[in-house]
Amino acid sequence: MPPSANPTADAPQRGAAEGVSREIRLVGHPTGLSGEGLFEVVESPIPDPAEGQLLIRNAYFSVDPYMRPRTGDVRAYVAPFTVGDALTGVGVGRVAVSRNPRFAEGDWVLHTLGWREWALSDGTHVWNVDPTVAPVSTALGVLGPPGFTAYFGLHQIGRPQAGETVFVSGASGAVGSAAGQMARIAGCRVIGSAGSPGKVAWLRDLGFDEVFDYHARPVREALADAAPGGIDVYFDNVGGDHLEAAIASMRNHGRIVACGCMSRYAESEPAVPRNLFMVVTKRLHMEGFRITEHLDRFPEFLAKAREWVRDGRLRHRESVIDGIENAPSAFLGLLRGESIGKVLVKVGPADDE
Amino acid sequence: MPPSANPTADAPQRGAAEGVSREIRLVGHPTGLSGEGLFEVVESPIPDPAEGQLLIRNAYFSVDPYMRPRTGDVRAYVAPFTVGDALTGVGVGRVAVSRNPRFAEGDWVLHTLGWREWALSDGTHVWNVDPTVAPVSTALGVLGPPGFTAYFGLHQIGRPQAGETVFVSGASGAVGSAAGQMARIAGCRVIGSAGSPGKVAWLRDLGFDEVFDYHARPVREALADAAPGGIDVYFDNVGGDHLEAAIASMRNHGRIVACGCMSRYAESEPAVPRNLFMVVTKRLHMEGFRITEHLDRFPEFLAKAREWVRDGRLRHRESVIDGIENAPSAFLGLLRGESIGKVLVKVGPADDE
Repeated sequence: MPPSANPTADAPQRGAAEGVSREIRLVGHPTGLSGEGLFEVVESPIPDPAEGQLLIRNAYFSVDPYMRPRTGDVRAYVAPFTVGDALTGVGVGRVAVSRNPRFAEGDWVLHTLGWREWALSDGTHVWNVDPTVAPVSTALGVLGPPGFTAYFGLHQIGRPQAGETVFVSGASGAVGSAAGQMARIAGCRVIGSAGSPGKVAWLRDLGFDEVFDYHARPVREALADAAPGGIDVYFDNVGGDHLEAAIASMRNHGRIVACGCMSRYAESEPAVPRNLFMVVTKRLHMEGFRITEHLDRFPEFLAKAREWVRDGRLRHRESVIDGIENAPSAFLGLLRGESIGKVLVKVGPADDE
Repeated sequence: MPPSANPTADAPQRGAAEGVSREIRLVGHPTGLSGEGLFEVVESPIPDPAEGQLLIRNAYFSVDPYMRPRTGDVRAYVAPFTVGDALTGVGVGRVAVSRNPRFAEGDWVLHTLGWREWALSDGTHVWNVDPTVAPVSTALGVLGPPGFTAYFGLHQIGRPQAGETVFVSGASGAVGSAAGQMARIAGCRVIGSAGSPGKVAWLRDLGFDEVFDYHARPVREALADAAPGGIDVYFDNVGGDHLEAAIASMRNHGRIVACGCMSRYAESEPAVPRNLFMVVTKRLHMEGFRITEHLDRFPEFLAKAREWVRDGRLRHRESVIDGIENAPSAFLGLLRGESIGKVLVKVGPADDE
């Protein structure tokens, strides 16, 4: 349905609380990070599922750095969001109405229709979540896509061996904090970088062997001091100066898990690694990946991660922002590095309510 | 023995032809490519092998780009040459005197003591060469280290599939020309870049599907035109602007064989790839290697390469410079891009003489 100029006037008569769903739409393509005002909250009637469809009442949705390029107007390698459409992203919610035999009413599900309070789905890209294992919010974090990203990237590409040294940048994020702890579980010495004293303190508490604040001194110096003998694996969430520092510190046959490039989302032009020739001289391996292409390994990850969460070796932190109207500022705060751990927006009743 | 200020005066009495060996020594560390005068030709008596040693009369030795960083004074990842010592590098020669049971007098051998007319060896890093298969010079080229570099890098890291598109930079060199032809043998469409019309013509003659002269227009444009559908494998001998162009043209899941970085040996600062974040977005795989760590696959390579050479599918070209006194200018000419194919210095009788 088209957005209304005055949505409340169009609200259905069955009562605002149950009858209206709010969602976040993109108003225009931002040119920088000062993107306030580029999103709007739009109300529309809660849809009725047709045969084969299900209606989900969202509890949480995820706010992720990779959404930044999707708000742009250039088709890179992920399609940009369309101005006037609701944003998409992973969410977790409960099936309110099901006309799809694969899902029962009351089921908790993970899906890709976040950024709205109610989601209408045909069942594609919807997976059941077991609420008895852990709070359902963890299906968006340590037991969900970020945790699996850390697990797959670290083990498939990083291949850490006990006794090796692993460096994780952006280590206080949902992916980085999981990757560092998983490297410790694998018997490695783990170095992390983060952007504030509070993040550094949390990572030390998680058991990272060395942590530095990359705002405090040049990354290259800080890393060389933290790893005088060099590093074997670099889990890269940042790119730019972090990647250059990691290449400089790499031992021969080092592995670079190319997971993200947060530095590219900053206002200024990111630094460009000037020492890439060392991929040749040090026989390095650098590789990117996308977990949606490797979902066959998700069950293996989930079994291990649940065990690690249960025995306390894999801890996590959530930054929960309440109310869909605050989602845009949560997203911009994430890009500005203001949050720790998994950033979630809470838009409906959770499993503990 | 120490170099003599007046070597000819020290020449042994058994006659200049047999009694004196000339070798190339490094006089100082160059700061740029204008390295003439940094090398000297020094004469010394032909040594007598002790028990366990062998004396080799060199026929050819190899001139390679990777020697450039070794002439510097910084220990990077290959030890620099020592001022006052003879340079080293692969050579092929005939055993003149053997006091080592593994080698017979008259054997043709490949070894690492090039840059001299006569080499005294204890048998370490000496391998027999079969002169009945092909001229012994090919043991330094298409059937030797450059050919194996092309084969290993292409198949181990590049993993070309029939129907895919492969881009080779520095394609007129010994490694590049072999890599491109091997990719054609694997059923791929092959694009090459080279630095002169003569090189371009030779690569077309070898069967490359598209070839461009990177001096004629920006690499990124030329490659995009040659591969409008993108490339799957990039065999990188150059780095810099070539690597950036290749990353820009890569299809998802593309592979980058990080073989060399010739652009780094130029006088000016090389361009730095600004689009490395695409390793993440396109899920690329980039990897360096050194063939000396993979010699277990040399026999497999040699068997195949001999067959391809025999049936004409793998052709090669040699730039042979005669006389050890011309080796320094051959090396500098290679760095300036003046040669085609394998660059060899001929310093003694070959197998066809």
